Amino acid sequence: MSRTEVLLVAGTHGNEINACWFLNQVFKKSELQEKYSFNISTVIGNPLAFEKGVRYIDRDLNRSFSSRLLSQFSQSREYEVKRAKELIDLYGSHSKKPCQIVLDFHSTTAAMGTCIVIYGRRSNDLALASLIQSRLGIPIYLHEGDDEQIGFLVEKWPCGLVVEIGPVAQGLLDYKIIRSTSTVLETCLDEIQKIKNGDFTFPMSLDIHKHLGSIDFPRDSDGNINGIVHPQIQGKDWIPITKGQALFINSNGEEKFFNFDNMPESVIPVFINEAAYLEKGIAMSFTTKEQLLFEKSWSEDFYELLA
Amino acid sequence: MSRTEVLLVAGTHGNEINACWFLNQVFKKSELQEKYSFNISTVIGNPLAFEKGVRYIDRDLNRSFSSRLLSQFSQSREYEVKRAKELIDLYGSHSKKPCQIVLDFHSTTAAMGTCIVIYGRRSNDLALASLIQSRLGIPIYLHEGDDEQIGFLVEKWPCGLVVEIGPVAQGLLDYKIIRSTSTVLETCLDEIQKIKNGDFTFPMSLDIHKHLGSIDFPRDSDGNINGIVHPQIQGKDWIPITKGQALFINSNGEEKFFNFDNMPESVIPVFINEAAYLEKGIAMSFTTKEQLLFEKSWSEDFYELLA
Repeated sequence: MSRTEVLLVAGTHGNEINACWFLNQVFKKSELQEKYSFNISTVIGNPLAFEKGVRYIDRDLNRSFSSRLLSQFSQSREYEVKRAKELIDLYGSHSKKPCQIVLDFHSTTAAMGTCIVIYGRRSNDLALASLIQSRLGIPIYLHEGDDEQIGFLVEKWPCGLVVEIGPVAQGLLDYKIIRSTSTVLETCLDEIQKIKNGDFTFPMSLDIHKHLGSIDFPRDSDGNINGIVHPQIQGKDWIPITKGQALFINSNGEEKFFNFDNMPESVIPVFINEAAYLEKGIAMSFTTKEQLLFEKSWSEDFYELLA
Repeated sequence: MSRTEVLLVAGTHGNEINACWFLNQVFKKSELQEKYSFNISTVIGNPLAFEKGVRYIDRDLNRSFSSRLLSQFSQSREYEVKRAKELIDLYGSHSKKPCQIVLDFHSTTAAMGTCIVIYGRRSNDLALASLIQSRLGIPIYLHEGDDEQIGFLVEKWPCGLVVEIGPVAQGLLDYKIIRSTSTVLETCLDEIQKIKNGDFTFPMSLDIHKHLGSIDFPRDSDGNINGIVHPQIQGKDWIPITKGQALFINSNGEEKFFNFDNMPESVIPVFINEAAYLEKGIAMSFTTKEQLLFEKSWSEDFYELLA
């Protein structure tokens, strides 16, 4: 087989520091890399924001990989647009070190545990995600059909998964988060190695949580948030809710309930009260669980990518 | 009695947003103020940082009230030094609206529950803190003898307490934190009103947690953190530890233990892994619990302040 390169990204959001610490202080110093027959590169996605301990400098780096923004990078004065272009120049298909697979490590203040996020239904992503799920049993959040959230880093590589781990405050090193980062990273690399070794055992199916939509906090006529996440749902990510579930509570104790015409009777909430989404007008997102039967084309495409 | 003015400050750190929300969305709109015979002003300590969702712009506002910095404010280019001077001009003793008491509301990522922080042993602070403790039973952290952490906001008013509530991530609205903010605020105001009404019942004693010192994370020769807070102590604020307690763990699983010559056999850790203290080189602080007998001069001074 030819050269396979895997890129590990941490600190795409500069204040999500656990994976940064893990890569710099543990992974790069360990002999773990020698276990694998493929090359592994590590990079801090947003080094300037990481240094300053903030999410980003000018704009969210993980919304800066849209074709529109990248085509205008030379005119852009925004640090993250330039950095997005730089990362593609360093590790993209036309670079000196083209990577086939990127794993982008994030943390969240929501009680998401460990999960994988994929963007759209690309064969390679589905193939790799299904291997990880078959090993760890973790949820796969399929983000699709959301025109307001685009330009994710992983979309610019042939295969790319986001790993989200929480809850943890921003800027805080947490033993449990680092342990989970370590576990999921090693599992990903082991599964890639398995394929490289010619073992093409894939699961029969893949459970995904399909993105249905997001909702904002209740706001007053001036746009100020006037209702907060209800204590009955705070921290209850991945637990199904049905119509009538209290979602928000305002200063008078008045509640807002789950009751939307464009949603099914029952949904599964995720990213409940993620601090960084306040500015995006997202209080939580809703998903529905589906089982996808494993398609032969997924493994064929993935094999071709790694061949 | 003459006019008493109480100043409520939230958002001294711009990303500690729960008290900001409570003051703006609940307190200012409620009829609670009418319950009291004294005037109450509310202010966002660091409005620019609050708007941007960051702790501060140029420097920590809550370390910007030192006499040295304030005397140089006209030459300073730092936003927070100018803002510190501005707050004193607006609410200090020589202002048009001099406030006798300031309550400064903070949140922390550490599992501190609700506590009061006082700086040094000022009679007025001890008197008011003892009243709150007698009502709510919450710990009082007495911060003194730390030359590296100076210039706190509350020190510039005759009576000033910091209220710290956690754990909560920065930039996240949390129902429980807001409830606790509400409880402690109303208790403070009720106790001040009691004094204004001529009820001078004070407790016989006050339990304080006296600051002993702080420790940094383990670091390598380049200054990088190479050990994180041990899971055995993470989230265990206020729980006494003795020599041999594991404090940190590094990437090889090696532990660092509580064993310092300048510390007593047993101490009580606080602010364990507060995200914002990473940059200050503080992984946790140690305290020792002491009982102070209530001194007559405390109530006399406090009476005189409010008379």
